[in-house]
Amino acid sequence: MSQQHLLSPMLSPKSLAIIGASGDKAKISFKPIANLKDVGYEGEVYLVNPKYDEIEGYTCYKDIDSLPSSIDLALISVSASKVKGILDELYKKKVKSVVTFSSGFTEIGEEGAKMEQELTEFSRESGIPICGPNSLGLFNFKERAIVSFSSLKYGQYDPVAFITQSGALGTLTYTMAKENGLGFQYFVSSGNEACVDFFDYVQYFAEQGDIKVIGGYLEGARDFEKMDTAIKACHQTDTPLVLIKVGNSAKGADAASSHTASMAGNANIYHSYLQQNNVVRVGDEEELIDTLAVFNKTSKPINPGGTVIVTQSGGAGILMADQFEVRGIELAELREDTKSALKDSLPAFASIKNPVDITAQVNQNPDQIIDSLNILLNDDQVQSIILYLQMTDEPFKPIISKLSQIAQEANKIFILCWSGIEQQTKDKVIDERNICWLPTPTRAANALANVLGYYRSQEQSSKGTSSSLQKQFDYHPIRGKQNEWESKQLLQSYGVTVPANTIVKSLEDIKSISLKFPLVIKALSSEIAHKSEYGLVKLNIASLEEAENAYCEIIENSNKYFPEKRLDGVLVEEMADRGIEVIIGAVQDELFGPSIMFGLGGVFIEVLKDVTFMPAPLTEKEAMRMIQSIKSYPILEGARSQVKYDIPALADALVKISHFCKTHTDSLEELDINPLIVHKEGGGVTAVDAFIVGKK
Amino acid sequence: MSQQHLLSPMLSPKSLAIIGASGDKAKISFKPIANLKDVGYEGEVYLVNPKYDEIEGYTCYKDIDSLPSSIDLALISVSASKVKGILDELYKKKVKSVVTFSSGFTEIGEEGAKMEQELTEFSRESGIPICGPNSLGLFNFKERAIVSFSSLKYGQYDPVAFITQSGALGTLTYTMAKENGLGFQYFVSSGNEACVDFFDYVQYFAEQGDIKVIGGYLEGARDFEKMDTAIKACHQTDTPLVLIKVGNSAKGADAASSHTASMAGNANIYHSYLQQNNVVRVGDEEELIDTLAVFNKTSKPINPGGTVIVTQSGGAGILMADQFEVRGIELAELREDTKSALKDSLPAFASIKNPVDITAQVNQNPDQIIDSLNILLNDDQVQSIILYLQMTDEPFKPIISKLSQIAQEANKIFILCWSGIEQQTKDKVIDERNICWLPTPTRAANALANVLGYYRSQEQSSKGTSSSLQKQFDYHPIRGKQNEWESKQLLQSYGVTVPANTIVKSLEDIKSISLKFPLVIKALSSEIAHKSEYGLVKLNIASLEEAENAYCEIIENSNKYFPEKRLDGVLVEEMADRGIEVIIGAVQDELFGPSIMFGLGGVFIEVLKDVTFMPAPLTEKEAMRMIQSIKSYPILEGARSQVKYDIPALADALVKISHFCKTHTDSLEELDINPLIVHKEGGGVTAVDAFIVGKK
Repeated sequence: MSQQHLLSPMLSPKSLAIIGASGDKAKISFKPIANLKDVGYEGEVYLVNPKYDEIEGYTCYKDIDSLPSSIDLALISVSASKVKGILDELYKKKVKSVVTFSSGFTEIGEEGAKMEQELTEFSRESGIPICGPNSLGLFNFKERAIVSFSSLKYGQYDPVAFITQSGALGTLTYTMAKENGLGFQYFVSSGNEACVDFFDYVQYFAEQGDIKVIGGYLEGARDFEKMDTAIKACHQTDTPLVLIKVGNSAKGADAASSHTASMAGNANIYHSYLQQNNVVRVGDEEELIDTLAVFNKTSKPINPGGTVIVTQSGGAGILMADQFEVRGIELAELREDTKSALKDSLPAFASIKNPVDITAQVNQNPDQIIDSLNILLNDDQVQSIILYLQMTDEPFKPIISKLSQIAQEANKIFILCWSGIEQQTKDKVIDERNICWLPTPTRAANALANVLGYYRSQEQSSKGTSSSLQKQFDYHPIRGKQNEWESKQLLQSYGVTVPANTIVKSLEDIKSISLKFPLVIKALSSEIAHKSEYGLVKLNIASLEEAENAYCEIIENSNKYFPEKRLDGVLVEEMADRGIEVIIGAVQDELFGPSIMFGLGGVFIEVLKDVTFMPAPLTEKEAMRMIQSIKSYPILEGARSQVKYDIPALADALVKISHFCKTHTDSLEELDINPLIVHKEGGGVTAVDAFIVGKK
Repeated sequence: MSQQHLLSPMLSPKSLAIIGASGDKAKISFKPIANLKDVGYEGEVYLVNPKYDEIEGYTCYKDIDSLPSSIDLALISVSASKVKGILDELYKKKVKSVVTFSSGFTEIGEEGAKMEQELTEFSRESGIPICGPNSLGLFNFKERAIVSFSSLKYGQYDPVAFITQSGALGTLTYTMAKENGLGFQYFVSSGNEACVDFFDYVQYFAEQGDIKVIGGYLEGARDFEKMDTAIKACHQTDTPLVLIKVGNSAKGADAASSHTASMAGNANIYHSYLQQNNVVRVGDEEELIDTLAVFNKTSKPINPGGTVIVTQSGGAGILMADQFEVRGIELAELREDTKSALKDSLPAFASIKNPVDITAQVNQNPDQIIDSLNILLNDDQVQSIILYLQMTDEPFKPIISKLSQIAQEANKIFILCWSGIEQQTKDKVIDERNICWLPTPTRAANALANVLGYYRSQEQSSKGTSSSLQKQFDYHPIRGKQNEWESKQLLQSYGVTVPANTIVKSLEDIKSISLKFPLVIKALSSEIAHKSEYGLVKLNIASLEEAENAYCEIIENSNKYFPEKRLDGVLVEEMADRGIEVIIGAVQDELFGPSIMFGLGGVFIEVLKDVTFMPAPLTEKEAMRMIQSIKSYPILEGARSQVKYDIPALADALVKISHFCKTHTDSLEELDINPLIVHKEGGGVTAVDAFIVGKK
């Protein structure tokens, strides 16, 4: 049975049991009962507490054993140490899923972690999914199943699902969204995630069909495969995923680990991974709800084109235009007929350029706004419209319902940014469920930029990009440090070009080499670092005589500086053609597994930190996205030297190296190719130095 | 009489006249009367309108001639074409200052611009300062002088002055600030700035003494000298200036020019200039009011140290810590005695690290929060504290007054971020005038980062840095394009090192040169670009024979490719020592005048756009700040090559070049030194190529 079916009883429960229900209104275990009552849950409700016969009209059972069998969801709100015993009892009654508010698990230390481990094992063995522990609860508002002790305000809801790893920030986000007219159909506080994790919920919602957009607050994922599968499910079903991902800094991660004992993973890999998989990453809870609102309340534009700003304040127009410039969002070039129609319908002093400044004079005749919007909606150069109004509640109240109609009928994104209005006006706007209202120019511009960026990336990437390995590769466990020759042999076995080379162990060997001059000659040892500094690398060897001298010098220097180190011989290589130097590396990340790093060599990595990461393996497309995502990418395209480098060969090498790393997940510790030379177009690449370390 | 005295009657008027006052409550010219009445202005009020004897109890005069003499401020609210006539009448009555709401000037086109020019001239000749035209008005709330038709809410005020070039965004900012408990003592809508401009007001407020912080919305300055003087006045009086500066993008600037007909200047120069002068630049009106609130409502910390986050939500703690990491704000390392005291005073599950997670258990005993804050205030490693609370209005209401006391007594920055609260709770917090309350974690973190960044920069820069020229320099007007030799002569006359060189005009000349080999030989012509590509530059000339050959080839290529172009001879130079290549340029900016550009050569400028700008002239300190502000600065310090380059000599060259540019403001069009070679430490710099263009 797949995970999504397992989660149905939890997220769409037809029957509910509350273990430890209390009739004492001051107690936390009374709250869920009140919540269910308040919103009018229509499923069965069973309470368990020997002290009561009924609470709020729901029958109260004396123990779990007295409950009917096969209840969809049981809510446990008892002290941590009692949870496991209750689970065992619930198992006997064939309960289908569990949510537990109980705290006192991993978040309090070792003892709690041990109890939490018992829950994890129980869930795995029994197949019963558990939300929590240490969860604020969850709800499905469509089915009025509120399983939470939080006193949240309920009401209208939108096809939006929200998952949070922080109960507190989750309720804040919920509250703020509600105030701005956005209701969540699903809300899940995932707690300590002893069993069901953040991305299990994401995948469930992505596949529900009735959810338009998913939002979340994420401190860290626990399982890369689950994350990757869930994100690809979002991609497949065109369900945008909008995340606050915290723990980006050393400091942030520190705080994260004390909070939910979650692995923060590597911030850089997260950054690249989420970006390259079109997850919309936002900075805070305001940007989150704004972005969810635009995804939810506006139509995906059916034509390309740019954005029009229609504004009553020139200043607000410039603020938004600035923001669009920063975010790479195009302002629309209005068609000539659009401009002349606008000129006819707007006051004399209005500015017909984009931003369209409708001036304060429209206060006298607000229908001019409606006319202008209709003109702009007919312009196929226009993909989205932000209407900015400010205060002047009274003059504009009459057009609210007309704006709602426009919002409903538009096949473009339409956002109303109406700032500084009274609560009563805001309520009226929000009551029109169609209007996407946002409070300030910058917030409106950012949310729109997020959404347009998502649509653009979604269009660019064809569906079904899969990074699963298409074939089996050779696997030989890597043990300890590999010397340069061994490292290059490994790379070569995966199809990465390395220079023609041979190992020589005596002066005699040198005489019989059949390599093409010029050569490079290096000491071969996995135990010696910084070889150049000790005269152990000789470049540009042009003749046999030079080669012999080089050999002798290297042996001499090796004996002199490193008498104790193991020398595996001397490596003689053909010198690679010229090109541009890049670095390809790999690290093992606790979450992402083997992850590939890429950047241009020298100052670009060392000073400018211009690198990108992606978990292995890479598809050709992902490799291209990595290459294009660094700031110095134009250099590879010839921006500086007029030489276009062999980017396809570089992408191919990244893919092959990523396959090597993925295949050797279990034994690879670290990989460093520095440099890999990318030759000019058609010339391929050569890994001229390489260093692979296996796990001990 | 200095400008600030001139502005006193406008910004602290003891008597007011309203020309064209109306008794019709629906009319815009009734509003200012109502506003004055409502807030209880205590100065004299004179209305002018022949139709009334009195309005709202104020006497109404039949014409301007009937008014008493020497009124402080006259408000004009009539159609544009009548304004000039009224000004002439007011002049006769010795009115001291004017504000005019009238629109229909520069913002509507040429005809309006002409009328506005008349206002400018009137003001210059009469010495009467005018606010506007096209202004929403201004007010001084301390003296209850509200000179505006806006229906703003008045009430408590703070020692904050605010100036806006957009009336609409200004009123929105005012309204939002008021909602968050911040009142402006001064508010100025500067309108079209026909006479008094944005920075005149800034300077006035900086020198007032009773203003703690100045905020503003700026589209563009009109006069660099005024801007520079005002900003330095802020610096001198320790008055932070917090600005939204829009028009950063091509698009933004486009919108700006249609809005206030203001010069946007060059966005890059603005950016560098404001940053290097410690002007706090914010992104939008929310960040503006938040930052003003922190400056206004918290104490400048008396000790160094870091920030402590005290949070009820782990998630909010991480969000803020992330933000601090991005902004370079240090989290405090708590002292051991602080930690143990916190452990004693907080609930068992609290996390005593920073962020300090006080958990939801403090809801039971909110005094634990007060105890913790008192402990942290005693830790000299702590410079600032953010307390994050969320919802749970009821439990925490009793400690609001205690928080206020802490805020009042703290000699550190103390911010209360209490999210998701009811309006009533918020009102209670705001009524405690001492508490700096901010609504969300990210907003709190950003505002604090802005303020700490300001204090840090203020500390680092000693006062009184002046960029005025200390001595007179040679000035010879530059006419048209200078050839390389002429350009280098000009630079050399300002003390910039150029290679030893000579001009040769025949093969005979070559034989008698007394320069040191190796040499560089180039065609000398201001009319030929891309010399290298046509074989007109020969490097690394090691002998006389090579020099003769080079000379001949250059003459030959010049005749072949550019028979029509003027050749001024052949330039023979000693080849400069090695070093790192930088580019120093200068452009003429409409606002900033001659402005210096600096960056590393090659990819750093061309691909990575890693450059900085500053208006000339530069002090040594400013030059150092410029050099340090580029991303690739570590390369100059030897991050890559282990070679430390001669940074002091580079700074010295920047200063000298800036003096050259400033001195030649009137005749310089463009300057380009590409490259200037910076030699290793102690080796100085050499301008190896230079190109100066004078105005035609």
